[in-house]
Amino acid sequence: MKHLIAIIFLTCGFSVSFAQSDIDKRLAELGIELQEPSAPVANYVKAVRTGNLVYLSGHGPLKADGNNIEGKVGKNLTTAEGAEAARVTAIGLLSSLKAELGDLSRVKRIVKVNGWVNCTDKFKEQPQVMNGCSDLLVAVFGDKGKHARTSLGTNSLPGNIAVEIEMVVEVE
Amino acid sequence: MKHLIAIIFLTCGFSVSFAQSDIDKRLAELGIELQEPSAPVANYVKAVRTGNLVYLSGHGPLKADGNNIEGKVGKNLTTAEGAEAARVTAIGLLSSLKAELGDLSRVKRIVKVNGWVNCTDKFKEQPQVMNGCSDLLVAVFGDKGKHARTSLGTNSLPGNIAVEIEMVVEVE
Amino acid sequence: MKHLIAIIFLTCGFSVSFAQSDIDKRLAELGIELQEPSAPVANYVKAVRTGNLVYLSGHGPLKADGNNIEGKVGKNLTTAEGAEAARVTAIGLLSSLKAELGDLSRVKRIVKVNGWVNCTDKFKEQPQVMNGCSDLLVAVFGDKGKHARTSLGTNSLPGNIAVEIEMVVEVE
Repeated sequence: MKHLIAIIFLTCGFSVSFAQSDIDKRLAELGIELQEPSAPVANYVKAVRTGNLVYLSGHGPLKADGNNIEGKVGKNLTTAEGAEAARVTAIGLLSSLKAELGDLSRVKRIVKVNGWVNCTDKFKEQPQVMNGCSDLLVAVFGDKGKHARTSLGTNSLPGNIAVEIEMVVEVE
Repeated sequence: MKHLIAIIFLTCGFSVSFAQSDIDKRLAELGIELQEPSAPVANYVKAVRTGNLVYLSGHGPLKADGNNIEGKVGKNLTTAEGAEAARVTAIGLLSSLKAELGDLSRVKRIVKVNGWVNCTDKFKEQPQVMNGCSDLLVAVFGDKGKHARTSLGTNSLPGNIAVEIEMVVEVE
Repeated sequence: MKHLIAIIFLTCGFSVSFAQSDIDKRLAELGIELQEPSAPVANYVKAVRTGNLVYLSGHGPLKADGNNIEGKVGKNLTTAEGAEAARVTAIGLLSSLKAELGDLSRVKRIVKVNGWVNCTDKFKEQPQVMNGCSDLLVAVFGDKGKHARTSLGTNSLPGNIAVEIEMVVEVE
């Protein structure tokens, strides 16, 4: 009986290690380096877990150098540059999610992604901008990364960031 | 005992059939024809279920002829035309929900509806626009269709659609 | 056995009373008076509960005198006035939440807060506006009030209200 339990623990340990290293390896393959999450500066936090869901705060396109990608898409930035901002934002979201979970292999499903594109009144390509985020999520998580999504425009965002994105994630 | 089980199965079968046909009949009475959901064109999907909740992507006012209702409310469209766009969007949402559930009688509650109205800076009647969606949901589902709601304005939406609406739905 | 049950009931009754009076006392200490929620005027409601989550509708800055705080931040209102509008809105949200729950001591966690600031295209201080809401939530609930948050700008809101805020709350 003791041996049986030992074997079960060993097996579980193994499978967890493999899964963890799979997502970490995938991130490395994609050349994605997660960030050290900054400390919250106000009376809110970057992620809250309730039951099996993690709600992530709206994140901006914070680059590795500590600066945000700023500007209005359709005026200061092209659609492709907006998509790159959405990709950078996705990395920030995954960084906060990892800080919350410890291990991204505990992600069961990216449930919902909402993204706001800081843009001109005439800009119409919000989905193409948001693909920068969606494509990264599916590259990292495969089918588990396929989410429901709402792509929106807005006339202004905090600090004039180019995009702001939030997520709801189902976890184990 | 066998007979009892048979009766239970028969009864359950009957009640499911009745419920299903009730919603279908109600849709027919209202003259609402659901759409064949289009295939996803990017790395996201129209609906994700987690536990008893279904999260629906932001939908636009896609008409039966395959075209969206476009324009800014307060400029190209009146409030009434915006409300009609919200009604059309609700039909699209129910079409995607039916594709996810198989049967709309499995809807236990429309929990939350968020709607963005593509409008001028001076437009103030977003709730009247969103009533086009809310009224249809309550016409179809009765009290189960009464939802929490957020009605918002925005300076631009994908493809210049008039409204974009998402929902969270509790299902059996 | 009967005595044991009686003691359990008494103890539970006591702890509920204490917790209830704690939040009520905290509100009084902060000089916050909750409002009598108005009746819904359309086919939606102010709050829907599903499982342990309560989804609250988008609320505006309705003052005790029955008028909303209106205007665009960055044009008709300063950032500080916007933050006051967000604070007033938080009181309205708590009023609707109390109407739903009966007792705010049943709040386990403010999970998510989304806020839209009615503002000019150049306004960048949406987070400072939203702090008016977040600070009140933490003043009332302590650590349970720390939420994930998304602060957004928009070109227009219903009735030209200054801010619109919605919440997801985990309850006992």
